[in-house]
Amino acid sequence: MMNPRVDASLSQIDDAANAAAEAFDAYSALPPERIALFLERIATGIEALGDALLQIASLESALTLDRLTGERGRTTNQLRMFANLVREGAWKGARIDAPMPDRKPLRRPDLRRILIPLGPVAIWAASNFPLAFSVAGGDTAAALAAGCTVVVKAHPGHPNTSAMVAGAIREAVAEMGLPSGVFSILFGSSPEVSLALVRHPAIAAGAFTGSLRAGRALFDAAVSRATPIPFFAEMGSLNPVFVLPGAVAERGDALADGLAQAVNLGVGQFCTCPGLVVGLESAAFDGVVERLRSRFQAGAVGTMLTPQIARSYRDAVSRLEATNGLRTTRPFETTTLTDSQSMPALFETDARTFLEHEELGEEVFGPSTIVVRCASDSELRTVASHLHGTLTATVHGTSDDLQEYRSLLALITRKAGRLIYNGYPTGVEVCGAMQHGGPYPSTTDPRFTSVGTAAIERFARPVCFQDFPAEFLPESLRSV
Amino acid sequence: MMNPRVDASLSQIDDAANAAAEAFDAYSALPPERIALFLERIATGIEALGDALLQIASLESALTLDRLTGERGRTTNQLRMFANLVREGAWKGARIDAPMPDRKPLRRPDLRRILIPLGPVAIWAASNFPLAFSVAGGDTAAALAAGCTVVVKAHPGHPNTSAMVAGAIREAVAEMGLPSGVFSILFGSSPEVSLALVRHPAIAAGAFTGSLRAGRALFDAAVSRATPIPFFAEMGSLNPVFVLPGAVAERGDALADGLAQAVNLGVGQFCTCPGLVVGLESAAFDGVVERLRSRFQAGAVGTMLTPQIARSYRDAVSRLEATNGLRTTRPFETTTLTDSQSMPALFETDARTFLEHEELGEEVFGPSTIVVRCASDSELRTVASHLHGTLTATVHGTSDDLQEYRSLLALITRKAGRLIYNGYPTGVEVCGAMQHGGPYPSTTDPRFTSVGTAAIERFARPVCFQDFPAEFLPESLRSV
Repeated sequence: MMNPRVDASLSQIDDAANAAAEAFDAYSALPPERIALFLERIATGIEALGDALLQIASLESALTLDRLTGERGRTTNQLRMFANLVREGAWKGARIDAPMPDRKPLRRPDLRRILIPLGPVAIWAASNFPLAFSVAGGDTAAALAAGCTVVVKAHPGHPNTSAMVAGAIREAVAEMGLPSGVFSILFGSSPEVSLALVRHPAIAAGAFTGSLRAGRALFDAAVSRATPIPFFAEMGSLNPVFVLPGAVAERGDALADGLAQAVNLGVGQFCTCPGLVVGLESAAFDGVVERLRSRFQAGAVGTMLTPQIARSYRDAVSRLEATNGLRTTRPFETTTLTDSQSMPALFETDARTFLEHEELGEEVFGPSTIVVRCASDSELRTVASHLHGTLTATVHGTSDDLQEYRSLLALITRKAGRLIYNGYPTGVEVCGAMQHGGPYPSTTDPRFTSVGTAAIERFARPVCFQDFPAEFLPESLRSV
Repeated sequence: MMNPRVDASLSQIDDAANAAAEAFDAYSALPPERIALFLERIATGIEALGDALLQIASLESALTLDRLTGERGRTTNQLRMFANLVREGAWKGARIDAPMPDRKPLRRPDLRRILIPLGPVAIWAASNFPLAFSVAGGDTAAALAAGCTVVVKAHPGHPNTSAMVAGAIREAVAEMGLPSGVFSILFGSSPEVSLALVRHPAIAAGAFTGSLRAGRALFDAAVSRATPIPFFAEMGSLNPVFVLPGAVAERGDALADGLAQAVNLGVGQFCTCPGLVVGLESAAFDGVVERLRSRFQAGAVGTMLTPQIARSYRDAVSRLEATNGLRTTRPFETTTLTDSQSMPALFETDARTFLEHEELGEEVFGPSTIVVRCASDSELRTVASHLHGTLTATVHGTSDDLQEYRSLLALITRKAGRLIYNGYPTGVEVCGAMQHGGPYPSTTDPRFTSVGTAAIERFARPVCFQDFPAEFLPESLRSV
């Protein structure tokens, strides 16, 4: 057992990756039912860790026990969802083209195509979901479900939580009689650990959730290998909310309350935290902003996931406060913050200032948002067209608004992976139709999702069998 | 109209990419029926070019009129296949999760996911299919079908063929009343033209068929952009053929004849040309090799696609001839070759020599193949496990052979995109179950295919609509 507080050595990284490669043959050849049972056994194992897991996770992340109870449910639900997906089998996308023996000038052969697992997958745990996007989180569940073996690089923000969950997975591996290389965990906070892992020749794909800087560095390493590998990084996302006039008129107060709540949920530490609110100048919109201000003024100190994250947030807020043309609203309460603490912050500016300052279009990870007032519809569209790729984009409006702003809808569809109408982006449903992945820099590959059943597709590739006798085909290709 | 013999200027490249971006809104919003008609109109337009197109293509590529007639059929069939796929609509993978308004603690929203086009696509035409994988070839058809606008970089090997086909596409654009930026063509043979195109900010994806060196350079440029883009390069492929003892005993002569024919088909200029034949030492296998030798001795001079390709081939053959431990067989006939001509070449070696010389595992583009004799099953498996990624891998054997060599089958499944039993890899069927794309270096992304209906998936990404009224959803998401 490695020490969760010490960086993995190069030989430990090498061992984990090689073990994953050695275990791959046996694991990827398991019948779907065995993989499903394995995933379910991991879920049961996590539940068996009981409240001790939640208490340690809460100590390490400062997240509430309530929130972590919900997150544990999401984690085990994800594992069971993938178990069902694997049992059902349709995710493999079997395609069969029957032979045409008499076709001229050439017979058409029997062609059968199916998805097979990519190989050993390296997964970088996220800080902000110490259970649901960490050691046994969505990425691990999806990769194991696809038939891939897994090496997790734990997040240094919750090492003991990680070690406990890794223990539950290892027990499931042992109880199912699988080779131990099916799952390994590596600890470490230095970039060298991550770079050695992503560059290891045995690793066939990588999945990461975290900052743009770290994600891009690992992506760059993945694609500049002698053999480049797919690397799915989920990074920063602005999650703009467009507030159209009809919605402002109909329910301005509720909108302000909903936005304040969404920004501050979990101390603003969701990938889908709305970091930008765009509206049209009007007395009614002023009312919304005024109410937002009062909600932020009433805001309280929050404890963030790690001191480092809190420091980054406080630095970003200070930079924004120092930017010309931004009005800042902070809570009335003032207090000396500890290393891990933060205060919410609301910024306001006009479209011209927003467009002039590239950095205002970048994510601030934490409980802050920027309100941009536009003087005209055309300014609103200009702001939308200047946005970078984002996980989500939200529109609040009436049906008449949607009609009038169809071109805005077309614009933001190009920028986002999920579009939300009259809601808030922070709830990410785990289901078949979810798309959690948008254009760069929100992810490195918007063609895939990291949440929902389609997340399994990241870890597979198609292979076509031509003219093989049924008994040598993968089971799902045997029937006609 | 640009001059097909002059490199496109930077401003021409810029204009083409920007026009593709400007046309994207209108083109991607077209109803499927209009896109289908457009693709069909291109097919009709190519047919209307008549035999003049085939004659020019034959002059420029040295391919026979018969071959080009077949290739024209494949080109127009591909366009019509994608037209039908677009009409039918299932490729968009619509997924709908119905809302659960009464779910506790939170309602589940209405979630609907569908594929949308990626944006303007840059396509590098291949040399070896001047029609079917060139200006209006599979990549262009797939990208246009997905709703993407296209900029083609023509291959300098067949500039006039390219210009004629581009003319047919432009006519279709005009007749359908589409913006001219839907399709542009650029000429040029310098790497600068290609690099400027792949780096252009308006380009959202790239597809390329050609050499490993050029493909990797463009892939590197694509992924090191400020905003990385998907880049699908199909590059070199060895296409190994494993000849198992039962097949050798049953039909050794036919095997030798089939292999000689597959290697020499189209002067060896297919991506799926079998460049490696692996068998087990035996008197019977000696017989196969002896017959192969006699087939190569009877081989004739061939004219390759371009002088450059012929020179590369002749250089590669000379390097192999100079390699210790390789036996070479060449045609008896000797003659002075012109710049574009080549002679077939058969090489033989043992497993140890093959494993010692890394370069023997690399593709030689042209009519040559290497026979590797293995002293044992374990040596055969070692050779298989040392192979790089490849488009195809073939096994010749009886059903008993397959049973005995199951582990070989598992090994090569990891290396290839398509596995062929008792056939030859050179025929690539254009259909739903085809997978033309294997692990690196055969392609940069084995998760996708460049042949068959699934090729359209390269140019799309999913987007999820949450709680939108039906009238603002893409049409295929409105039902239910």
